[in-house]
Formats: sequence, structure tokens, C-alpha cells
Amino acid sequence: MRVSTNNDDRSVQVTPKRSRRIAHTENLMMVVWDFTDGPSLEPDPSHSHPHEQVTYVVEGEVLFFIGERFTRLGPGDMVTVLPDQPHTIQLLSHRVRLIDTFTPLRKEFL
Amino acid sequence: MRVSTNNDDRSVQVTPKRSRRIAHTENLMMVVWDFTDGPSLEPDPSHSHPHEQVTYVVEGEVLFFIGERFTRLGPGDMVTVLPDQPHTIQLLSHRVRLIDTFTPLRKEFL
Repeated sequence: MRVSTNNDDRSVQVTPKRSRRIAHTENLMMVVWDFTDGPSLEPDPSHSHPHEQVTYVVEGEVLFFIGERFTRLGPGDMVTVLPDQPHTIQLLSHRVRLIDTFTPLRKEFL
Repeated sequence: MRVSTNNDDRSVQVTPKRSRRIAHTENLMMVVWDFTDGPSLEPDPSHSHPHEQVTYVVEGEVLFFIGERFTRLGPGDMVTVLPDQPHTIQLLSHRVRLIDTFTPLRKEFL
């Protein structure tokens, strides 16, 4: 059985205050992001990718931007991102945990 | 922007103590399950489907069964389910929130 526990040592430290942890099947990827560098004065740089995305907020608050539009999201909220839509976040709280899910796999995260 | 908030009125009451809420794109579905009927004395009936699945535990504790094997999962843990693998859960706490993600869409949930 393939399990990734909350304190898994397979977590990848992307910056000193941002880490990610991944579980995936052939075409489905879940990424748990932990941020401890909020709140941020401005959004992260916007990005896009051809993958479909659904995001869930576990902990904390963010502004979620898609193109020029944005909305405030908190625990339990979900948002969808279509292929190639420019999107980003701005952290509103010190700690944020997001779950990003993708199809197909974001191979650069493997 | 397509957002589903935590207190969304699009939540579907599946039984008096089990509800689900969905966000999806064309090939990617996220289902937030809320259970308030735990703990359970035995597992739910096992089931399988051709869809790939990744599950995340937001709140509570469960036993997660794949075939004859099982493991205890709690907040922050993830598990993957391959197509057609029989699987089920047993609730170990009163309240449980799970996030199930699927590709392709579970059309019976739409």
C-alpha cells in the first residue's frame, strides 16, 4: 500500500520556508504544499501549465488569482484551474497548507 | 472563477451523517467527504472502480483497506488507489473529513 504520512521524510524543501510532498498514480498527482513565509505583501509570480488543477485549502488563508481576478480562500475551500490559465497565490496568513491536484502528472515535481 | 466554499450549499447529503462536496475540471475530480457517524465497529463494504484515486485525510482517523491490507491514517496522510483495486475505510473517530481525488471523473457523483 502506498502511503505518504504527514511527517514523511520524502518531503522536498523548495525554499527554507516552503516544502512539498507528493503522492501520485499514473495520471493523477496530489501535492501537499506547506508555506511558513506568510503573510506576503504581494502575490507570487503568476504561472500556467497545460495540466488541469483542483486546489483545496487545508490551513491558512490565501488570495487565489486566476488572470486578473482573485478571491479569498480559507480552510475547506476549493478552486479549479483550467489548462493554461495563468494563476498564483498570495499568502494572507503565516502558515498555509494547500493541496494541489493535477492531471496529467507535473513531471517536474517527480 | 469556480470556487466551492467550505459551507457551500452544493453539498450533497448522502446519508444523514455523510455528505460530499465536489469540484472538478474535465478529467480531474475532487470530492470532500464529511462523516459524523464514526467510530465504526467494522469497515464499510469494499468497492472498486476503474478510476485512479489519491486520498488525503483532513480530519479524524480511519483504517484504510486495500484488498486484505490496511493501515491507520490521520491528518495529513495520503494514500493512492490503483484502478480496480478493492478498497474501503473504517472510521476510527466521530468526525472524519477525507479528500478523494479521481481521474477520470466519477460521473455518478455529478
